Amino acid sequence: MKLEIKQNILMEHLNYVIKGISNKNIIPILNCIKFELTNEGLYLLSTDNEIAIKTFIKKDDIENIDRCGDILVSGKFIYDIVRKLPNSTINIEEVVDNKIIITTSTSEFTLNCNNPSDFPNIDLEDSKNPIEINKTVLSNIIKQTSFATSTQESRPVLTGINFKINDNYLECTATDSYRLSKKVIELNSKVDEEVNIIIPTKNLIELTKLYSNDDDNILMHIFTNKVIFKFNNIIMMTKLINGNFPDTSKLIPTEFETKVVANINEYYNAIDRASLLTSEEEKNIINLELKGENMKISSNIPEIGNVEEHLNVKNEKGNNINIAFSSKYMMDAIKSLESDEIEILFNGEIKPIILKNPNSDDLIQLIVPIRTY
Amino acid sequence: MKLEIKQNILMEHLNYVIKGISNKNIIPILNCIKFELTNEGLYLLSTDNEIAIKTFIKKDDIENIDRCGDILVSGKFIYDIVRKLPNSTINIEEVVDNKIIITTSTSEFTLNCNNPSDFPNIDLEDSKNPIEINKTVLSNIIKQTSFATSTQESRPVLTGINFKINDNYLECTATDSYRLSKKVIELNSKVDEEVNIIIPTKNLIELTKLYSNDDDNILMHIFTNKVIFKFNNIIMMTKLINGNFPDTSKLIPTEFETKVVANINEYYNAIDRASLLTSEEEKNIINLELKGENMKISSNIPEIGNVEEHLNVKNEKGNNINIAFSSKYMMDAIKSLESDEIEILFNGEIKPIILKNPNSDDLIQLIVPIRTY
Repeated sequence: MKLEIKQNILMEHLNYVIKGISNKNIIPILNCIKFELTNEGLYLLSTDNEIAIKTFIKKDDIENIDRCGDILVSGKFIYDIVRKLPNSTINIEEVVDNKIIITTSTSEFTLNCNNPSDFPNIDLEDSKNPIEINKTVLSNIIKQTSFATSTQESRPVLTGINFKINDNYLECTATDSYRLSKKVIELNSKVDEEVNIIIPTKNLIELTKLYSNDDDNILMHIFTNKVIFKFNNIIMMTKLINGNFPDTSKLIPTEFETKVVANINEYYNAIDRASLLTSEEEKNIINLELKGENMKISSNIPEIGNVEEHLNVKNEKGNNINIAFSSKYMMDAIKSLESDEIEILFNGEIKPIILKNPNSDDLIQLIVPIRTY
Repeated sequence: MKLEIKQNILMEHLNYVIKGISNKNIIPILNCIKFELTNEGLYLLSTDNEIAIKTFIKKDDIENIDRCGDILVSGKFIYDIVRKLPNSTINIEEVVDNKIIITTSTSEFTLNCNNPSDFPNIDLEDSKNPIEINKTVLSNIIKQTSFATSTQESRPVLTGINFKINDNYLECTATDSYRLSKKVIELNSKVDEEVNIIIPTKNLIELTKLYSNDDDNILMHIFTNKVIFKFNNIIMMTKLINGNFPDTSKLIPTEFETKVVANINEYYNAIDRASLLTSEEEKNIINLELKGENMKISSNIPEIGNVEEHLNVKNEKGNNINIAFSSKYMMDAIKSLESDEIEILFNGEIKPIILKNPNSDDLIQLIVPIRTY
């Protein structure tokens, strides 16, 4: 393998594939990036066996392709070296004994490489009927649901986001069993077969770091054990989580005893301040008391002090209420709603609280209250 | 104590005194901020017994002084509460049982307080002849020398910066015994008595965070066991380190066998790239070889690879050289020099390397080479 390439072009693509390398990986070969130089261009590939990222630099963006071939080089070192080289032409040449030499006019790096045939064989072929989804829409789904994912490895299915597709509706759900986020969007076209998969949340978050939100679409190629995302010249594969995601369809009530609408900033700030006098060990518990249109948010740490926050809300329906919940969960839920007002729905003091934009049912946030008696 | 004050004014001053609270402190009283409300204004004071910070809000900047008095309140809680309150008027009132109530139109916080008489009595009186020093000049001294301070507690005197004043010259020195930074500046006036003190480096760094670099002066009131800095309406006290700072005056040679001048960016970038193939366990050792006007910087990690960097320098005097040193120490030293070129001075391969601006002797950086054979 031998080529000449501009530093900024190689760097842009190393920035993608470096995200496929886990720094916790103890298998040395998985800390490498595979360079595949063909007459059409240069492929870069990384994988930690859970995800894989592949990018392509087409020949027009390469100064000179002298000799095709594959190399397998330490991801950390090639990344740091190229990052610190000036923005000019870099020569990369494979020499005897599985070494590469990286040269510019003033620098000469020699790096020991691994045998490219030792690298895992990752199948990144297309599926028959990929799903098309707008980049910004996908980013929002992930941003608005991922925080509700469980971080406990004891129930693996809850560490992912459930993607269900039926007809032309995509429903994405995340829950840690104390709260739940559900977002529904309409796709441009119908699917032939129903989809019901669980994608690891941490990999979806990595995916959103690989692209900027323009109006282009991402293609989702769904298989039984993996999903492949394609966009620009980038391919990202993630394995799926095995198992059945809990059926949450009956969890979200359609009837409510109490319904109020609050200014979202006033409500958030009141909870944020009240949360100062809560402790994580006590689940950041705060109390909400509704009397007509007066809402009182309160909390206390006995040895420190207490706080009361008051705000006016529109009481659109129903009874007074006195309920307790985690301020942290409530703040996460509020932050996901992009509206000026928030609709807060109750069914008594022990049933889940529902939060949503008053003008839309696309995004539903659910929080299970905490019993304090 | 009872007052009304604008949130932004109280916040500005809490931002100063919060820096006097160590979050590692296990004595609860030292996690408090003392409020002293007099008819002239409000004093805020914090201390961890090593440093103390006192600020003053004059009565013109306070909406209403209702009742003078002292309170002692948890620094963390009052800071977070005021930070999260909106920018409007805050009422703070002491009530029975050592409690305060903090209210705005929508919020009411009640905080348990400590007895203000339990707070350490900190003497922050002026000395007779304070030293005046420009804020930017003091910041630069600290920035250009502090990194050479030792982080090892085994030799406490090396964890501070030595301030020596003689006539109208201030000489500041820091060393961890492997490298040394020395900066000399001229003061506006002479001192009557020689000064030779060691100020803890971490406290000097905290000091620079308390002010912005304008052209005003800071007053340094020096005592045998402490120094008090005064500027704007802020007082910061730090204890001094007991003991004698090593006499470093004979360490810096005045004659050199080899003298070269390099472009500072080219030299820094070559070292920075070569340091990629060094390891911290091996002291980040790199090699410098000078042949006439050709400088070669090289390093290697046997299992990974090696690097050679080449640059042209002006060889102003002397012999070829082959010397090894810590790339980290060299980069720290280069970064402290604010010039386009760097003068690098050698006396053979085992004597200290000196680095400086070719046009100035104010700042001297010294690095002890590492013997590799």
